[in-house]
Amino acid sequence: MKSSEVNFDYERSARTGLDEVVFAAGKSVDQIAYIVEAAVARQVRLLITRLAPAQFEALPEAHRARLDYCAVSSTARLGATAPLTRAPRIALLAAGTSDIPVAREAERTLRYYGEAIELFADIGVAGLWRLTERIDAIRLYPVLIVVAGMDAALPTVVAGLTHSALIAVPTSVGYGVAAGGHTALNAILASCSPGIATVNIDNGFGAACAALRIVHMMDRAVAQVAIASGEASPLSEES
Amino acid sequence: MKSSEVNFDYERSARTGLDEVVFAAGKSVDQIAYIVEAAVARQVRLLITRLAPAQFEALPEAHRARLDYCAVSSTARLGATAPLTRAPRIALLAAGTSDIPVAREAERTLRYYGEAIELFADIGVAGLWRLTERIDAIRLYPVLIVVAGMDAALPTVVAGLTHSALIAVPTSVGYGVAAGGHTALNAILASCSPGIATVNIDNGFGAACAALRIVHMMDRAVAQVAIASGEASPLSEES
Amino acid sequence: MKSSEVNFDYERSARTGLDEVVFAAGKSVDQIAYIVEAAVARQVRLLITRLAPAQFEALPEAHRARLDYCAVSSTARLGATAPLTRAPRIALLAAGTSDIPVAREAERTLRYYGEAIELFADIGVAGLWRLTERIDAIRLYPVLIVVAGMDAALPTVVAGLTHSALIAVPTSVGYGVAAGGHTALNAILASCSPGIATVNIDNGFGAACAALRIVHMMDRAVAQVAIASGEASPLSEES
Amino acid sequence: MKSSEVNFDYERSARTGLDEVVFAAGKSVDQIAYIVEAAVARQVRLLITRLAPAQFEALPEAHRARLDYCAVSSTARLGATAPLTRAPRIALLAAGTSDIPVAREAERTLRYYGEAIELFADIGVAGLWRLTERIDAIRLYPVLIVVAGMDAALPTVVAGLTHSALIAVPTSVGYGVAAGGHTALNAILASCSPGIATVNIDNGFGAACAALRIVHMMDRAVAQVAIASGEASPLSEES
Amino acid sequence: MKSSEVNFDYERSARTGLDEVVFAAGKSVDQIAYIVEAAVARQVRLLITRLAPAQFEALPEAHRARLDYCAVSSTARLGATAPLTRAPRIALLAAGTSDIPVAREAERTLRYYGEAIELFADIGVAGLWRLTERIDAIRLYPVLIVVAGMDAALPTVVAGLTHSALIAVPTSVGYGVAAGGHTALNAILASCSPGIATVNIDNGFGAACAALRIVHMMDRAVAQVAIASGEASPLSEES
Amino acid sequence: MKSSEVNFDYERSARTGLDEVVFAAGKSVDQIAYIVEAAVARQVRLLITRLAPAQFEALPEAHRARLDYCAVSSTARLGATAPLTRAPRIALLAAGTSDIPVAREAERTLRYYGEAIELFADIGVAGLWRLTERIDAIRLYPVLIVVAGMDAALPTVVAGLTHSALIAVPTSVGYGVAAGGHTALNAILASCSPGIATVNIDNGFGAACAALRIVHMMDRAVAQVAIASGEASPLSEES
Amino acid sequence: MKSSEVNFDYERSARTGLDEVVFAAGKSVDQIAYIVEAAVARQVRLLITRLAPAQFEALPEAHRARLDYCAVSSTARLGATAPLTRAPRIALLAAGTSDIPVAREAERTLRYYGEAIELFADIGVAGLWRLTERIDAIRLYPVLIVVAGMDAALPTVVAGLTHSALIAVPTSVGYGVAAGGHTALNAILASCSPGIATVNIDNGFGAACAALRIVHMMDRAVAQVAIASGEASPLSEES
Amino acid sequence: MKSSEVNFDYERSARTGLDEVVFAAGKSVDQIAYIVEAAVARQVRLLITRLAPAQFEALPEAHRARLDYCAVSSTARLGATAPLTRAPRIALLAAGTSDIPVAREAERTLRYYGEAIELFADIGVAGLWRLTERIDAIRLYPVLIVVAGMDAALPTVVAGLTHSALIAVPTSVGYGVAAGGHTALNAILASCSPGIATVNIDNGFGAACAALRIVHMMDRAVAQVAIASGEASPLSEES
Repeated sequence: MKSSEVNFDYERSARTGLDEVVFAAGKSVDQIAYIVEAAVARQVRLLITRLAPAQFEALPEAHRARLDYCAVSSTARLGATAPLTRAPRIALLAAGTSDIPVAREAERTLRYYGEAIELFADIGVAGLWRLTERIDAIRLYPVLIVVAGMDAALPTVVAGLTHSALIAVPTSVGYGVAAGGHTALNAILASCSPGIATVNIDNGFGAACAALRIVHMMDRAVAQVAIASGEASPLSEES
Repeated sequence: MKSSEVNFDYERSARTGLDEVVFAAGKSVDQIAYIVEAAVARQVRLLITRLAPAQFEALPEAHRARLDYCAVSSTARLGATAPLTRAPRIALLAAGTSDIPVAREAERTLRYYGEAIELFADIGVAGLWRLTERIDAIRLYPVLIVVAGMDAALPTVVAGLTHSALIAVPTSVGYGVAAGGHTALNAILASCSPGIATVNIDNGFGAACAALRIVHMMDRAVAQVAIASGEASPLSEES
Repeated sequence: MKSSEVNFDYERSARTGLDEVVFAAGKSVDQIAYIVEAAVARQVRLLITRLAPAQFEALPEAHRARLDYCAVSSTARLGATAPLTRAPRIALLAAGTSDIPVAREAERTLRYYGEAIELFADIGVAGLWRLTERIDAIRLYPVLIVVAGMDAALPTVVAGLTHSALIAVPTSVGYGVAAGGHTALNAILASCSPGIATVNIDNGFGAACAALRIVHMMDRAVAQVAIASGEASPLSEES
Repeated sequence: MKSSEVNFDYERSARTGLDEVVFAAGKSVDQIAYIVEAAVARQVRLLITRLAPAQFEALPEAHRARLDYCAVSSTARLGATAPLTRAPRIALLAAGTSDIPVAREAERTLRYYGEAIELFADIGVAGLWRLTERIDAIRLYPVLIVVAGMDAALPTVVAGLTHSALIAVPTSVGYGVAAGGHTALNAILASCSPGIATVNIDNGFGAACAALRIVHMMDRAVAQVAIASGEASPLSEES
Repeated sequence: MKSSEVNFDYERSARTGLDEVVFAAGKSVDQIAYIVEAAVARQVRLLITRLAPAQFEALPEAHRARLDYCAVSSTARLGATAPLTRAPRIALLAAGTSDIPVAREAERTLRYYGEAIELFADIGVAGLWRLTERIDAIRLYPVLIVVAGMDAALPTVVAGLTHSALIAVPTSVGYGVAAGGHTALNAILASCSPGIATVNIDNGFGAACAALRIVHMMDRAVAQVAIASGEASPLSEES
Repeated sequence: MKSSEVNFDYERSARTGLDEVVFAAGKSVDQIAYIVEAAVARQVRLLITRLAPAQFEALPEAHRARLDYCAVSSTARLGATAPLTRAPRIALLAAGTSDIPVAREAERTLRYYGEAIELFADIGVAGLWRLTERIDAIRLYPVLIVVAGMDAALPTVVAGLTHSALIAVPTSVGYGVAAGGHTALNAILASCSPGIATVNIDNGFGAACAALRIVHMMDRAVAQVAIASGEASPLSEES
Repeated sequence: MKSSEVNFDYERSARTGLDEVVFAAGKSVDQIAYIVEAAVARQVRLLITRLAPAQFEALPEAHRARLDYCAVSSTARLGATAPLTRAPRIALLAAGTSDIPVAREAERTLRYYGEAIELFADIGVAGLWRLTERIDAIRLYPVLIVVAGMDAALPTVVAGLTHSALIAVPTSVGYGVAAGGHTALNAILASCSPGIATVNIDNGFGAACAALRIVHMMDRAVAQVAIASGEASPLSEES
Repeated sequence: MKSSEVNFDYERSARTGLDEVVFAAGKSVDQIAYIVEAAVARQVRLLITRLAPAQFEALPEAHRARLDYCAVSSTARLGATAPLTRAPRIALLAAGTSDIPVAREAERTLRYYGEAIELFADIGVAGLWRLTERIDAIRLYPVLIVVAGMDAALPTVVAGLTHSALIAVPTSVGYGVAAGGHTALNAILASCSPGIATVNIDNGFGAACAALRIVHMMDRAVAQVAIASGEASPLSEES
């Protein structure tokens, strides 16, 4: 491992509101350890995704002790998590129990950025009542992340029942023609319900980031109103 | 066109309960005309599918006059249609208005064999009320043919709400990742609702045949009970 | 594992005649154990599919003791199996010996619901006599499940020789262009024999459910005739 | 054309903030004409997408006169367009001149709902200065729709430079491995910049709807703040 | 059209027993006309495949007069055809009437090289008797070319019933998952009957060439025996 | 393992000249052991393909001792191999050293049926001299099996230089776009050299069977000449 | 057409040595006309690719008169072509006559930039002598562009016989598995000959640009040597 | 392992400037050991690629001691490496840290042939400043190898900013739609920046060879100028 192989984008948060995050799949243990050390040395916090249990176990004990690791979602966090200071604005819907790891990746990412979520799990439309009995609660959230595999019919039905911004996450749950999540992805993209946006298969992290961009813009809109009405001091564009 | 190129399977009905049907796509006008003439000469009736308007128009006037042609479904029927002697047992559900040509192919095929249908059209789950307000009526039919394109979420939701035998037909409605109907097909195959069976993309004819096999077996079951209880005379296996 | 991740659809049977079944692939051992415990607590029976031997072995001993596990088909059943009270109505055809695990998944699912089957194994059409010498016995069954991999020519030939309702199950047996079962699936969907319906690759469970929907409708038809002729008391729609 | 084939979802707007929109591709002229007549009779406005010039020309003159048709984007609008009462909040970025038809579909959809846009066209990253010289202006918009074909590198670079919510639209511009837009779609989904959400290939309409969901939620957030601070009267959840 | 664009391989027959043949698809009329002129000037005969009727019609009248053109198979022959001096050794089996154009391409290619064929048409296995009643006749031919589209089950069944060398030709007959012939091709490649060799989709010409290579080797084997037993004069390797 | 799961086609050799062969991939050790026992009991010989070393090792010692196993080609033979009574008629060409396992599967299959081969290995066209220096020797064989992976250019060049019947076998050697052998397969099918026939990826067994069908027909042709000239006694069609 | 839709990258040549070139496929006639007018007004020259004859014919007469149009390659040039001042350094190899349009696109692009080429056409490896008799001449060119469709075996053989830089261009010539050129592309990428680089299917333009980058670097190397040895005045980095 | 299975192309360097290199994936340890022994015996050096650590470890100790093995890039070198006698002419750009193994394969291949490189790592365009701050240094290299996975936007941006010859290497970094590197490959092929050439996924070796062909031609150009100006003695074509 040579230091010239890593060139971390520490300024990304200032440019985009989102940190550079370490995608561990395919990285060597040496490379991951180097990145963790650099973050510790620089005193910045860090989010690591796709860190398989075997990779985590291979890290030096000192690193492992510092990391808040979650094996279900294969994520690790270094450093303090932002405190939760408001009610959740993002609802996380999961069609089936097998979709939980992807949902947890989204949840852990949002929590890293200080956003709480409300989970609505196992509400796939094969048992429609599971969704309809909860739809009024779901409608209250301005941003919905809908995680579904197999035929991914859930986002279509939800989008037909709500006003909220909706990010769908296809998952690789299933086998045969479903395997890999391409059918879920394509079904979401081809949905007859308008206004669904999507991300890569199993990309709970990416959905969380898309949701963060939306809530950040909601915050900016509110802040700009507040400024206009003299209630608050001006915020910069990056706020 | 040489007669040696055609070798019609006139006995198929005796073996399977279903006639050999002419698939016109890719056949020359000469070949189709020859087959129609042979059927007329033999005094058998005939169903032709995928007969494009241009093919139909290119047939000799005498042939066209004999055929009951439907441009929406690209089907033609030669000879008398069986009279309808009972209430419909098959419900035909179409998710959107664009799915009608495929649904009509199924309807015309069933009618050729003496089966009436009830049509429930434009009930896609993006507007869920359209389905739920009709679901009690749908449940009364023992066999459902569900025609849907794009993400084909309708069969999943219907299967979760009914006991009936359910044949789904994916359609090629849509564009981008949906085009060609492969996403609809795969979504149906990967459905989280159990017990959905499917046929090829846009294959309204095949779905009708699968439905016919089922109602034929329902009839046989009833007949066997009747025989057992002494109400009717025995039926052969082919009945 | 949090209880909020599971939301079991215990009412599915009332709505569809089929229980919610646990699809174990991709679920953690914790999740499966939780579901088993909940079923035991609620005193309901359970069918689990795609439960790999490694997953089964990782369950607590108390759970393992309660489950009727079959490693060939990767299925487990919890609770009493319905008694068999009639002769089999469903024939299970398997093209080759390698297709047996998928056939056993179908068989075990049907047995869970009280349906016996007759197995016709290793009758692929490369040795045509194996099929033709048994075809008269096969024709007696109103519902056929035909399991085949590689080029899946068996369903086409069987459909051309029988009146029965026919559910084909493509399998992932084979390699090269066959691997994954997509060729078997596509060959079935493109079959020149009319009236074949199909399910996902290796989906013996789904084929069993489609067959159950058909025999349930046969039963309903018979019951309705009986009611009409005064032999039996009325049955509700859900019977 | 039978009226039973159409079952318009007039209440969709109340449920989702977005009308049911007519997808004309694959519909017959008869079906489209029927839908237009029904909307006129009911005195509702209508948006039609994918209405090819040949379809438009085949409509009765009376219908054509009522429709505001745009051949570039293949869209038609019936009835009054909402007045523009505020500065644009959505920026529309198009990588190349060939992406304009898709961008115009998005623009016309947004305009139908009363949203103005600012267009930044022909800013593909092969000539990076075209983007960097405009990036400060782009950053001011809370929602970005980024339309790009071929390798679709533009959304990745834009997402790395902005805080805004970002909806990418892959287009079918290109040939060989690009044709159909699948490469653009996959490149967007696999982007190394976090927080990009996407829609189907060439789906300018869908991107506009996703953007509308976001600005509606921004409006709701602002309204809720206003309510809390006593500046405005309460708004219902649908506002 | 510049003469430098064409570099005809006149010696191919000496090297391989097969002439260079002109593949007209994608060639301009100028290029085809140039090649025909060159063959006339050089006094060699010529076979042209994939010569669409529109291309043929666009050729100069003088060229058209010289060519023996067949619109069904899109082939043209220039110069004398070899006389038929023996009984056919190659049987041509076509599963359906729609497969005839591909079968005719094979037949015309074989005839160009002096080989007659026997045609067995419309013997697809959906009506199994059509094959079994002719199988004894088919078995007499040492080389079988089996043309089939859709699910292409015919080659599998034929291979299980015969000793002969068997070349299968998948065709593009069908729609949905069959379209393009990929399913037929893959089903043939994945066949459970051993010893089937195949060629590209719709490649009747290629199958004919593969069959020619086999009969040429049969002839060489006979000739070598004859030489060994003193009945004939030695033949060179190229005979 | 139940005996009803296996239904061996012992008569296949009489029908086709080729035995039923056991394809071990996907079969359980129980199933394989049962088949071996049945063959021993019946005193027939047996060829097993795709028998992975782990499967072989898991067989009972008594079985292993009876089998002639080759780990390179994953094949096993039970019973006596036919003696070699003539010079090889089949040349086996392998493009690279990595293609050897597939070539050995073909060789072992041919040997099982009494045919010797000559191997020409590592003659890929990236080093063209390796082929051209051996081409005169290759031309002497009436049947060529050409095994090649990656871009599979070897069969094209060989076919352009020889009269022989040519069976190509694509292999899964390579990575990236080559992986799985689909590129090799497609390149062979799309070859610009006429008369190449092919089999499934890595299917050395199938290529051997196709070659056997050809040499059997050569033998039959020679036998028929001998009969006609009174040199030999008549042979049945099956000889 | 609005001027805001076009944002031409006039400085690209200074940055990369290559002009921005107009890709006409998918552009409207209005857009193309606008771009031509802008180039005339600005007095810059222009290269247009993928300009179909129908698009060219639809342009105003004044535009057509200014353009040097080639229907074979679908390219148009505006303004003076650079004079040829040296012997060709780039050889253009085309496997078949059908590959000529793609080769001509490369040739016309190179000529636009002042580079002559030598054409070696119809030298596909099915007739190997056509290549080997010319290989010594080919070896003299430092850069080779090799255009080939179907199985694209030519680049592999050429790369094994030469030292030159080699850019391969797969073409869409062929049908069945070849259609679209994906097999040619994949075969080139999987080639067993090292050092072949490739471009998109049918992308003669892109291959020409890749070749230009190479010869520009050869020129820079020579110029730097000349500077070092005092023979020439210094050249800027962009020379 | 038989010696007849290997037929090393020792003369390839004379023909092409590049040695035959051993591709170890799919080769048995026996085969690799045989090749190493042969090279030692013949006293030639050797480069081995795709030699997995498990394969390396399984080689005899004597072999391992002779090989210069690198586990990151899975390459081994036998024999002396050419001394570096000049400044690097090839820049190696890697978009992310996960792309390093592929970049190292290229670097080790170039070093084997005596070429040094300069590495620019972790400069993906999601953080554009990482590229722009180094672009002036990058421009000085006449040949660029750009390694990128996921959406592979880096080559497009680099090509728009430089004159250099540019070889892109797509990598298999990513998951979901990215997995396998096909999206990266297709994005590169469909790039809107002209003049990018590419190689197979993860093919660092192939990119190095393509770069070597270019620098060899630069050397030949310089040598020819030198000869012309009388400064140096003539070099043969192979130099």
